[in-house]
Amino acid sequence: MSTSSGPDRSPRVTARYWIETAHPLEEAAAIMAGEQSTGTFVRVAGETEELRERFGARVESLVETGEAAAPSLPGASAPKSTPGLWRRAEVTLSWPLHNFGPSLPNLLAAIAGNLWELKPFSGMRLLDLSLPPQFLERYRGPQFGIAGTRSLTGVHGRPLIGTIIKPSVGLSPEATAERVADIARAGIDFVKDDELQADGPHCPFEDRLRAVMRVLDEHADRTGKRVMYAVNITGEIDEMLRRHDRVVAERNTCVMVSLNSIGLPALAALRAHGQVAIHGHRNGWGLLGRSPAIGMSFIAWQKLWRLAGIDHVHVNGLGNKFCESDESVLASARECLTPMFAPPQRGCEVMPVFSSGQSALQAPATYRALGSIDLIHACGGGIMGHPGGIAAGVRSLHQAWEAAVRGTPLAEYARTHRELAEALAAFGR
Amino acid sequence: MSTSSGPDRSPRVTARYWIETAHPLEEAAAIMAGEQSTGTFVRVAGETEELRERFGARVESLVETGEAAAPSLPGASAPKSTPGLWRRAEVTLSWPLHNFGPSLPNLLAAIAGNLWELKPFSGMRLLDLSLPPQFLERYRGPQFGIAGTRSLTGVHGRPLIGTIIKPSVGLSPEATAERVADIARAGIDFVKDDELQADGPHCPFEDRLRAVMRVLDEHADRTGKRVMYAVNITGEIDEMLRRHDRVVAERNTCVMVSLNSIGLPALAALRAHGQVAIHGHRNGWGLLGRSPAIGMSFIAWQKLWRLAGIDHVHVNGLGNKFCESDESVLASARECLTPMFAPPQRGCEVMPVFSSGQSALQAPATYRALGSIDLIHACGGGIMGHPGGIAAGVRSLHQAWEAAVRGTPLAEYARTHRELAEALAAFGR
Repeated sequence: MSTSSGPDRSPRVTARYWIETAHPLEEAAAIMAGEQSTGTFVRVAGETEELRERFGARVESLVETGEAAAPSLPGASAPKSTPGLWRRAEVTLSWPLHNFGPSLPNLLAAIAGNLWELKPFSGMRLLDLSLPPQFLERYRGPQFGIAGTRSLTGVHGRPLIGTIIKPSVGLSPEATAERVADIARAGIDFVKDDELQADGPHCPFEDRLRAVMRVLDEHADRTGKRVMYAVNITGEIDEMLRRHDRVVAERNTCVMVSLNSIGLPALAALRAHGQVAIHGHRNGWGLLGRSPAIGMSFIAWQKLWRLAGIDHVHVNGLGNKFCESDESVLASARECLTPMFAPPQRGCEVMPVFSSGQSALQAPATYRALGSIDLIHACGGGIMGHPGGIAAGVRSLHQAWEAAVRGTPLAEYARTHRELAEALAAFGR
Repeated sequence: MSTSSGPDRSPRVTARYWIETAHPLEEAAAIMAGEQSTGTFVRVAGETEELRERFGARVESLVETGEAAAPSLPGASAPKSTPGLWRRAEVTLSWPLHNFGPSLPNLLAAIAGNLWELKPFSGMRLLDLSLPPQFLERYRGPQFGIAGTRSLTGVHGRPLIGTIIKPSVGLSPEATAERVADIARAGIDFVKDDELQADGPHCPFEDRLRAVMRVLDEHADRTGKRVMYAVNITGEIDEMLRRHDRVVAERNTCVMVSLNSIGLPALAALRAHGQVAIHGHRNGWGLLGRSPAIGMSFIAWQKLWRLAGIDHVHVNGLGNKFCESDESVLASARECLTPMFAPPQRGCEVMPVFSSGQSALQAPATYRALGSIDLIHACGGGIMGHPGGIAAGVRSLHQAWEAAVRGTPLAEYARTHRELAEALAAFGR
């Protein structure tokens, strides 16, 4: 999507939507544009043509994509002239930046505010958005991103191999650290808390961090390898900043936050304050993204968070145990690696995190579809449940990615790589 | 909903959901509880019975409510044993508070995290939640609420009558102040910015606040009446706190924020810092709440924000121009006035804000259904478009509420109240 300049030369924000409506498409698109900029439902005193020209949102394109036999959402209006005809379309709107300035929270009110309650629509999804580079002057984007994450972990030439501490809830700080010790010894690059584990009274944040870092420091002293620990600091803003500082004091290199739980301003505050990589957990995303009739695509959603400062973000995984299709997972991951702004501006690329039901098996298809090794491949059972043990699980992932990059079928590579062979036998379907 | 104590005496959080699934209902409910507490899809090492007992979420109740011919959402799994049968149910889960502690962002990961991506479900809505009073020790709830808002405005014995500054976008600070001067002279109690108007370069926050407050100060000096101005301070956290302090310095009594744009931690930070009423704008709520197949009810949503510290929240209005039914609007408003905690705990009641297509006409039905005058009745065209002018518009609202409270039909009361009669003629349908 391109960002054009208006007649008054204000840079413009563009947003593309999927809509469903029984109203004439041009009328429906004009209602969206009016309601989200100068207008209310009816023209009011003081709303002059000049004001409309300077501040009105514009319909940049409108493409009909199909029809529906029935409205996807209840409560929509239908003109008497076209009973029973619900049409679908993609519409692109643009706003002059001077309506809200380069402010993500105020951008949201325009591109994702009252729209979903507008009566003429029986379906509404925000598909994509494009922001002018003024947002990059205001927001910081990823501090570490792909190159920085590789530098912090010392992992080059292959994906980072990661895992998640389980059970999700109930381990004491000491029990957590014991798990992490086993995982570190196995050669893992990256380990993360579960999103359900932050600062519950049975496993207080500070105690867990200290216990885990004692283990990871010992491991680094012994091996020279610093495992990145995405420790869940999700909480109130003062708590997150304080926890971040404890993370720095303990020489850890990463914090994790549940993005939908904290909001964009809290992330921006953490990023402004932060000295370590920010691992963005997307839990709650299904509420926004799963329905084809309502919501926001991951494509649009992740742009907001990248600008605000995440370095990694979850994209689910191929053959995952959730309800998302592989095609959708890959589109999400590709987008994380696609620049948001053209050079010489920063692209704000972030590392996609593949997880959920992952093992050595998914490496070839992931690599073929993504064309990149810049990702975190997070496996739970695919590493911890390897018949040869955790270290064999990690090695099976290394081998699978070697095979994937070489274009050698896994079964063939497995002939000379025992841990991969064991993984195929254990996890193959 | 009640909050029971577990066998280990930890207070519990309960949440009620609407679900749709092709799996046996008991199995589906158990998957929800497991995934959002101790479990992953499969039992892992270390997940003992004792740990399940202490940390597992529990299914408190499960009531089948109907069947669906087809899945409401794509991507759901169906067991081969029950092809084509999609059942709907209400399920109540409970979590021990010690899983996450009294932390709203971490509560969200449990009650509204990965749930919407779980494969066995073709529909999922969070309907309600109940929190133990430990949350009240951590969060502050409304600082002003209903009594405080009445005290700040000096309005007693009737709803606050409010209006919205239009056009939404494009007025200069001076033009905004001129509008507000007219509105104040007309006898309004409350005036608010549009959610699209915060700090755009054409109408910078500080200039707008200063210009409007000059007008409102003059009005207060002249009349003794202090109009409450819900000035939109939505932005990054440091911006919002700074703007709040400017609001206090200018002796204004209210700030407005777009809740979904800023997130719970930012609101809690504003509340902790704040000295004025917080007007919560719900724009973006449609994305969460409109679909019957996915999302979160306003009932559940507003509890989170009340705890975090709003004093007012938008509930739409009867006969509104959006897609919401009157029944839904009234349920939302009633909930705002219903205590979240039992005495001697604070109830955290907030003022519901009725808006969208409002005029004198809706007063009787609103009062009959709500049984309360504790609300802000915000009218745009219903005041500004009154044939007798703005002051007549405000008086027509006063008269309509007098009639409503007395139980006198509007048409009858209008015989002796000219402005009401004019409103009925202009806005009657």
